[in-house]
This record gives sequence, C-alpha cells and structure tokens, in this order.
Amino acid sequence: MVQGFKSSGIHAGIKKTKDKDMGLIVSDVPAAVAGVFTQNQIKAAPVVLDMERIISGTCQAIIVNSGNANCCTGEQGMKHAVKMAKAVADTIKIPEKNVLVSSTGVIGEPMPVDKACAGVPALVNELSEDGFLNFAKAIMTTDTKPKLISKTIKTDSGFFSITGVAKGSGMIRPDMATMLSYVCTDVDADSTTLKQILTKSVDKSFNRITIDGDTSTNDTVLILANGKSGVALADSLNKEVFQKVLDGMLIELAKMIVKDGEGATKLVEIIVKGAASIADAQIIADTIANSNLVKTAFFGEDANWGRIIGALGRAGVPINPDAIDIFFNDVQMVKNGLGCGKDVEAEAAEVLKLSEFEVVVDLHVGDGLSSCWTCDFSIDYVKINADYRT
Amino acid sequence: MVQGFKSSGIHAGIKKTKDKDMGLIVSDVPAAVAGVFTQNQIKAAPVVLDMERIISGTCQAIIVNSGNANCCTGEQGMKHAVKMAKAVADTIKIPEKNVLVSSTGVIGEPMPVDKACAGVPALVNELSEDGFLNFAKAIMTTDTKPKLISKTIKTDSGFFSITGVAKGSGMIRPDMATMLSYVCTDVDADSTTLKQILTKSVDKSFNRITIDGDTSTNDTVLILANGKSGVALADSLNKEVFQKVLDGMLIELAKMIVKDGEGATKLVEIIVKGAASIADAQIIADTIANSNLVKTAFFGEDANWGRIIGALGRAGVPINPDAIDIFFNDVQMVKNGLGCGKDVEAEAAEVLKLSEFEVVVDLHVGDGLSSCWTCDFSIDYVKINADYRT
Repeated sequence: MVQGFKSSGIHAGIKKTKDKDMGLIVSDVPAAVAGVFTQNQIKAAPVVLDMERIISGTCQAIIVNSGNANCCTGEQGMKHAVKMAKAVADTIKIPEKNVLVSSTGVIGEPMPVDKACAGVPALVNELSEDGFLNFAKAIMTTDTKPKLISKTIKTDSGFFSITGVAKGSGMIRPDMATMLSYVCTDVDADSTTLKQILTKSVDKSFNRITIDGDTSTNDTVLILANGKSGVALADSLNKEVFQKVLDGMLIELAKMIVKDGEGATKLVEIIVKGAASIADAQIIADTIANSNLVKTAFFGEDANWGRIIGALGRAGVPINPDAIDIFFNDVQMVKNGLGCGKDVEAEAAEVLKLSEFEVVVDLHVGDGLSSCWTCDFSIDYVKINADYRT
Repeated sequence: MVQGFKSSGIHAGIKKTKDKDMGLIVSDVPAAVAGVFTQNQIKAAPVVLDMERIISGTCQAIIVNSGNANCCTGEQGMKHAVKMAKAVADTIKIPEKNVLVSSTGVIGEPMPVDKACAGVPALVNELSEDGFLNFAKAIMTTDTKPKLISKTIKTDSGFFSITGVAKGSGMIRPDMATMLSYVCTDVDADSTTLKQILTKSVDKSFNRITIDGDTSTNDTVLILANGKSGVALADSLNKEVFQKVLDGMLIELAKMIVKDGEGATKLVEIIVKGAASIADAQIIADTIANSNLVKTAFFGEDANWGRIIGALGRAGVPINPDAIDIFFNDVQMVKNGLGCGKDVEAEAAEVLKLSEFEVVVDLHVGDGLSSCWTCDFSIDYVKINADYRT
C-alpha cells in the first residue's frame, strides 16, 4: 500500500477471453513522473503519446489495456489513445495531459476504443489501495502469473512505500514481447531525479534480461512519485536508499518476467568476468544469453559448454581462446580453453537439473564484469509462438 | 565428373552409428586452391592448419571427418589434424603440406585419431570419379540429405566441369552449425583469382543464409582447380562465365542447407528493398531472418506481419515507419506502415502454406536492396538441439 495511490483492473471485452484486460492507476494528487520507452523505431501510438506528455514531468493517472497493442494503426490509433486518456480525465476530473496510456497485444488491428472507453467508469469505481493485484492481472497477456512487489522502507526521515508491477513473458501471442512496468511510490522527488534513478535501475534490471532477443513496439516503464510520505530524495542519503530499493525491486520484477518467459522452465544467470571492459563483458553475456543453441541445451539439461564457447567466439570482442574458464555454478567445465573431461559431466548434469543456476565465463583478459538473466528455450516456446492469431 | 578428381567416403568408426564418417578428395595433379573459413574467434585445429597451408595456393587432397570437431582440443588436437593429413600424404605419396583437413561434430572431445588414420587406406582404395556422393554422405551430421551438384559448361575455349558438395543443417547435434563445402573444378586458374571469385560467390550464397544465427568453429569452404580442362580463367570471358556458374552453384547449395535446416519445413527468402543503402538492406534482412518470432510464425503458417515490423524496427538502421510495404509473395499485407486488413489474410494464409515463398519488405527510403534465405523454426528444432550428447 502506497499512500495516495489507488488501482484497479477489470474485463472490458478487449480480450476474447473473460480475463481482465484494462487497468488503471490513479494518484490522489499530481505526481512526478519519469519513464523509459522502447528503442524500437516502430512505436505504438500510446508510446508516442506518453513520450510527448511525460516531458511535463507530471502525471496523475495511467490507463492500460491488454489484448490490442494499438500499433501500426496510423492517425486513428493516436486518436484512440488520446480518447482513452480523455475518458479517464473526464471521469475523475483531472487535466487530460496528466493521463498516460499503455497498450499491449495484437498489432495492426484497430483498437476497440468504444469498449475501452466504456470500461472506464467501472475501472474508476473499482479503484482501491489494494487494487494493484487486479491491475497486475489486467495487463497480462501470455504471462501465467501476475507480477507485483510492495515494500515499505524505514529511513531517517520516516517510512516510504513503493509498489512495482510488471508484465511480459517473451513475445506475446500473437505478437510481441511487450514489457510493461509501473512503479508507484510516495517519496518526494522531482521528475529529473526520478529519471536518473529509473534509468540506472532499468540498466541493471529490464535491460539485462532476455527471453528471445526480440523487442516490442510498446515497451514502457513508468515511475510515479506523489510525495505523500514526506521522505524527500533531495536528501542524498534518502536518494541512495531509494536507488538501492528500486534496483532490487526492478531486478526482482525482471527475473519474474524471465522465469515466466514463454515456455521457460529455467532461470539462468550468465556472468562474464575478466573481459577487456564492462562493455565487452556485456556483449558476450548477451550473445550467450540469446543463443538458441545455448538455450535449447539448457532445456535439454545438457552441460554443453561447446555451445557457450561457440557463442562467445562469435560475439565480436577480443578474447584469448586459451585462457577461457567456464563454470556451471561451482562446477568447472572448461579450464584454459580445454574441457575438464568426462569426470565433471555428472556433477554438471546435477546443476543443469536445477530450476535456477549460474553460468560463469572467466575470460582472463581484463577486469570487465557483466551479467544478465536468460531462460531456456523449450518446445512450448515454439508451440506458443506458432499458434495462429485466433 | 570433373577431370582429374576422385573422391570417396567410408565408415571408419568415428561416429557411434554405422554411417559414413570420413571422406577424401584427391586431384591427380597439384591444384590451385582458395578457401574461406569461420569468422569465429574459436577455431578448430584443422581450420587453423588449413589457414596456414592454404597460403601456398596449392592443394592436392582434402580429408574430412564427421563425428568429432577436433575443436577446443589444444596442442594435441593440432597434432591429430597434422597426423590425419600425413596419413593421406604417405598413402598417396604427395607432399604433406598439400593435404588439407576438415572436421565436424562434437567439440571438446579428443579426436579418435587412430581410427581416423586407420581409415585412410580404405578411403584411398575407394577413390573414384563417381565417389563424390559417398563423400557428400560421409561429411553429414544432422543433415538428412547429401548435398551435391555437378555441372559441365560449354565455353568458347571448350568445356569445363565443376562439382560442389556441402553439409550443414543448423547446429550440429550435439554441437554447432558447422557448414562445410568443397568445390572441385578442372578450369585453369591461379589461387589469387580463385580466392576473388570464391569470396564473391560466398558473399552471395553461404553468407546470406541463416538457420539459427549461430556460427561454428569449423566452417570451411574450399575450391580446387586443377586445370585439366584447359579452360583458363586468365581469359576474362571465361572468368565471367565461371563466376556466374559458381554463384549459381553455391546459392543452390546454400538453399539446400537451409531447406535441410534442423527441423525446417519451409525455405523463405527475405527480400528488403528501398533501404538507404545495400548495407542497411542486408542488416534488416538478417534481423528479420534471425528473429525467432518471425520464424515461429512461419512454422505456424501465420502471416503475422507485426513480427516483421517489430524486427525491422529494432534492426538499428533508419526507416520511415509510415512508408513500409510488406508482401508475402505478391499478396500485399502492409501499405504505408498500415495493415491491409482482414481481406488479404486468407490469400496470405495460402502463401504461408507453401514450402517455399518470399517476404518482400519495401522501405521506400532509398535504393538499397539485399536478400537472404531463412527457414521456419519448428518444434523439431528444439527437440533436435535439446537432446543430450549421447
């Protein structure tokens, strides 16, 4: 529960199932806001709208629908996004410009905007301090679980609370990997500070996960701070505490997304150390994490380090083939570029059976360290994504 | 049948099955040679050996084994590669330095070099002008079909012949996507000219296909020209004809590899036109061709153009979202960045049912054109690659 925030989630008829498909977050007062959006050059209408509106640094409500991405929908799509925001603004009587919008689902199909707007009164009616779980459910697509974390933290200036919600599980049937996340907190912060803190946290969390290497036209992370707790981030100690809390929360939400990845059965952290630079370590970690070869071997519970060697060899950054060590948890599979033999296979096989484990690659060429989270690549992933759009 | 070349393929006991696992190509006389090798920084021992030996520009025999990649095998691996070449040189009495070696199969396991060398007398014994099909079978791993093309071409200087063999079908169980190809011809050419011609052809063929985006430690393409036909490439007209024939042959072999891709059921050409440059067109074509999203949709016979839009939007090259047209064969799905509606879905669905079709993306921002071949991404792909190394 975060002071001054209410949320809700309902079924408005956008999805063909009976599942919830619209969510609303409202702050009692205008809140400072910061956001990060998809890097994809094709951006859905609500993303374009939010990128314009967020410049003001102020937001009081966010409306989200699942089931339709409102992307590649042209001018009409933008009109529909504006209309959804207006419906909220009119109902709760706040300025239209203080409402942000997100959509996730099929792309290229017209938004059923009348259904969406018709759902707004019910959404407003359902608003409650405990409504975030319903909101988390309403933004799900191929996710199998809602993703929600709430924390209350003690500081020297008193307590503050923070609630984070996320969705995303690879590409969304029938379209793409929309990753949405919303964080509400009652700390007191300006939007510039929020943006700095959010960017740092996202770089450590949502930007360090992969399910399939595809990105979406709709990815959005928003943070709202309404100041209700009186804990001010102008105090550098509070800012430090808040950064740490947000880092931890977004990393947890990011890991929830990977664990709930389409068809995923394992969460694997790829840790690359001893690279020439942090950037090099990151490139290699990402290349390994996105290799279908490596990911299908994880699914097969096969400690097939040859595939890891192959991926890091093609990552395009300098390595010394004769200096590479590879570990699965603490089982060393490769030493100085050579396999450690059949003896360690049985031990490694035990690690691979775990639902969570680490792969550590030590390149021994420098101090660069980076890591990321990935999942295995299963038969169900293909099944989920090969299904016809129905 | 190419004048002055003989080939063979046998089972020497490297594979655990009864399948052929060693192949040999021999030219009656020393031939000019050119090659291209994997860009992967991790290179198998035989690749390192060949890269040294090919500098001389002369080769008379190539020995290849499947079932073991002789990669990540250290100094011993190099000794084994040298030993295999020596066994051939000693048996057919040619200089050791004129023998090249390739291996494909499991990486990180010691080469059973005694079995390989013991197979050489039988390989030599089986050599025949019609032996290329046996050779093509002997280099297969997860390939389901041998890949062999032979042609005889008339020129103003007389006839020349050319035979090309290839293998590769994604990553090789249990390791990686080793792509091997060998071309034998009786034209008369120096190794510098051969290298120029080969590089051009490879850029249009093997470098324009993808099955899973992973590359191997063992990829090798070699061309041998022994001059027996008397058709000399010093004649620019002959050179032009030869380039065209080699282009066509390597494109055909490359397409055979994609069609026989692990689990593949469809061969799809991705054509990108109207990009700002050829390089941009190539990047976009490759990004689409490697998207798991796009490839699983092909498998599901789903004309899901949203996934194509998503992939091209993240390719990192400039586009105009409002100018994009997308076609499946001649069915237009997207016009000016907007979907063409439900009416074309049925027609598109018919295209997607074909075993071969084209996806054309027109960006309308310039004249850049490029294309590549990819396959669909099926449940069998995951099954094949998740299997434990047994």
